[in-house]
Amino acid sequence: MSKMTKESGFFITLEGIEGAGKSTVLPFLAEQIEALGYTVERSREPGGGPLGEALRAIFLNPDLQLDVEEELLLLYAGRRDHLRSRILPALAAGKVLLCDRYEDSTVAYQGGGRGVALARIEELSRWAGILRQPDLTFWLDIDPQVAAERIRDRRPDRMERESIDFFRRAQAAFAQRAMEMPKRFYRIDASQPLAQVQEQLREALLARIPPRQSHHG
Amino acid sequence: MSKMTKESGFFITLEGIEGAGKSTVLPFLAEQIEALGYTVERSREPGGGPLGEALRAIFLNPDLQLDVEEELLLLYAGRRDHLRSRILPALAAGKVLLCDRYEDSTVAYQGGGRGVALARIEELSRWAGILRQPDLTFWLDIDPQVAAERIRDRRPDRMERESIDFFRRAQAAFAQRAMEMPKRFYRIDASQPLAQVQEQLREALLARIPPRQSHHG
Repeated sequence: MSKMTKESGFFITLEGIEGAGKSTVLPFLAEQIEALGYTVERSREPGGGPLGEALRAIFLNPDLQLDVEEELLLLYAGRRDHLRSRILPALAAGKVLLCDRYEDSTVAYQGGGRGVALARIEELSRWAGILRQPDLTFWLDIDPQVAAERIRDRRPDRMERESIDFFRRAQAAFAQRAMEMPKRFYRIDASQPLAQVQEQLREALLARIPPRQSHHG
Repeated sequence: MSKMTKESGFFITLEGIEGAGKSTVLPFLAEQIEALGYTVERSREPGGGPLGEALRAIFLNPDLQLDVEEELLLLYAGRRDHLRSRILPALAAGKVLLCDRYEDSTVAYQGGGRGVALARIEELSRWAGILRQPDLTFWLDIDPQVAAERIRDRRPDRMERESIDFFRRAQAAFAQRAMEMPKRFYRIDASQPLAQVQEQLREALLARIPPRQSHHG
């Protein structure tokens, strides 16, 4: 009865620096994907799988003075667990896995922000077996100064405490990656009013994700 | 006044499968090293540094179904932190860093026990910058069946729950490594009565670690 292939779902990620508005648009994105006939499973990084969620508290704890290699080893341990325990099973079950951050954030923050060479990140990614990339990545592009003003009142975690220069470098790394991977990346100007951001997201989804036929259709 | 070179201490590790008797001989080893005129700093893996200790609970939690690559990524994150935050500073200060398990246990357990190729472990070790090996490693060599009987009454953690075959493979990996690195490894027959084990440890220390001259000598 089922026409399910080995992997019939879609893997969609949302990326951007702190204050870009990811949390605001995630529920909207999930609704729009459901309207196309898919079951949506939401996730996040750092975190996602059981190991990643256990590591998340360690990763964001300002008292542990992690260096960037330690950050990367933890991120990739969690990402491997996330991929095998949640992402791949969801895709195999035909769902859309919608994730708040994934490997592009590592390239932006630990690569651009902290200055680790991309080749070194890619070496660890290969070691850890992170072979699955998203089918579609929405990048909320925003000026780091504007973003910083938006999050001024948050109680900052370890990443949010970084300087404006850190976020400028992260932003540049996102921009570079979006330029290099134009098929996967969809840039959204996140300084627009929310209604326009939402309209752009909706149109991009319609253009990229085929509506699922209902079983009764 | 100080004649301290960049690194004037010694890095000594104690290795062996569960039940070999490491915990029993550690205080004795520490005493003997102090009798040679050194300040001893004791440590352990998994653990050691602040990150490693935070990861230790995760690593040994039977409910998190880590695969072996995830184990290795966590072990090397903790080991890097251990090395830079405790081991290297202790050696630079002229102390003896005495550690219960280190990288040889990774080669024995994740390599021998779980079957990961040594080259793959070494690749991660290089990535993580684990450049410092122990000056002297005591390997408590014991038959896995005898060891299993010794620890029968312990409440087992995730590693101690492994099968006798796992420990046989780990034991074989220790033996292989001891054969390949005869200068660093010192094998102790751990099935001997404790007094003989202690005598052998004392003699090995005297032969390998020069007594430190007192400042008043």
